[in-house]
Amino acid sequence: MGEIALNIRAVNRPGVLRDITELTALCGINITYTHLFMEDKDHASIYMELEAVKNVEKFIENIRGFDSVLGVDECLSLHEIYGKRIIIIGGGAQVAMVAQGAIAEADRHNIRGEHISVDTIPLVGEEDLSEAVSAVGRLPRVGALVLAGSLMGGKITEAIEEIKKEHDVIVISLNMPGSVTEKADLVVTDPIQAGVMAVMAVADTAIFDIKKLGKKRF
Amino acid sequence: MGEIALNIRAVNRPGVLRDITELTALCGINITYTHLFMEDKDHASIYMELEAVKNVEKFIENIRGFDSVLGVDECLSLHEIYGKRIIIIGGGAQVAMVAQGAIAEADRHNIRGEHISVDTIPLVGEEDLSEAVSAVGRLPRVGALVLAGSLMGGKITEAIEEIKKEHDVIVISLNMPGSVTEKADLVVTDPIQAGVMAVMAVADTAIFDIKKLGKKRF
Repeated sequence: MGEIALNIRAVNRPGVLRDITELTALCGINITYTHLFMEDKDHASIYMELEAVKNVEKFIENIRGFDSVLGVDECLSLHEIYGKRIIIIGGGAQVAMVAQGAIAEADRHNIRGEHISVDTIPLVGEEDLSEAVSAVGRLPRVGALVLAGSLMGGKITEAIEEIKKEHDVIVISLNMPGSVTEKADLVVTDPIQAGVMAVMAVADTAIFDIKKLGKKRF
Repeated sequence: MGEIALNIRAVNRPGVLRDITELTALCGINITYTHLFMEDKDHASIYMELEAVKNVEKFIENIRGFDSVLGVDECLSLHEIYGKRIIIIGGGAQVAMVAQGAIAEADRHNIRGEHISVDTIPLVGEEDLSEAVSAVGRLPRVGALVLAGSLMGGKITEAIEEIKKEHDVIVISLNMPGSVTEKADLVVTDPIQAGVMAVMAVADTAIFDIKKLGKKRF
């Protein structure tokens, strides 16, 4: 049964998503991912990934039938386009270096047909960093998180513990003072290598099982 | 009236989102962003940004009342945490250089209280690249797109035209052969500077209006 991705443009008013989700529930369709956002004051864009769609054409026709819906297109899923995400959080200098390693390695895998993205945010301060780490659990398609700083502990470490408990995310830390290195799956000194290893750890075209490395530091 | 962000953990079954969206519609609450994804086979995580919430406590209590809901937390919005996004798409070598400029510049703005993310994907081939450019319109919080390649035209240029028509996204291109440079808001030769300028163009703490530059090349 069909897994499909749809892009729906609609008028922005309460009830639009209700109408669509009511229809999916009635049809026994499971929504695996949905993402609604405002295009402007009057228009919303709803992107949905659905599974167990028995009759795709009929379902799309039904959605088109809603008054508030302006258009529906079947499209590739974000997973097919942007694939797994490596998230790099920390100080600017180090985030940039880890990103360099990760992007170069992702390029090598993507050329062979994979889709791996490298997403980053440079931040300063325990509060901002711990919030960014916690929110990784609310981001889609995350495969690995790299902590690219020179001193991380306290609330950041707590956020890592929480993320690891609730989500299937590999955590790689640069070798640094602070307690985050104790909670990371892997500690790497060279930022370029940390980025490369993060991509290798999530890539399907790499033979690299981070669990087999144990708690070694590189 | 309240704008809030909620993180809802629920059992994965058809109808969960329907129940929640029905409640929001009944309360006249507008969903400005929602994002549902599977945590594992049995659990879904629903992140929502809502506006026009009259009674936040009551609303959260009502959501907690649904059988399929396991927990509800009020949280910071993804905009408050990760902020505006710069998306860099192209070949690995150049994506990495543009990212370096963008991350260093984002760091300087984020230190002053902004939140700017730098998200990248290295890809090869007109098909993959044009799909990635088109899908930028389905990503949230995008402020600018940087095309970091050495030859881009054809379908990639068509995707840029489409994005610019439907979304408020600044497009910066490296100086390269191919028609994409004709459609970009700004053409920059140095990849580091392209990254820096992309961040300056979306930052609130920068005085840099890309429209004032006209169609100059740097």
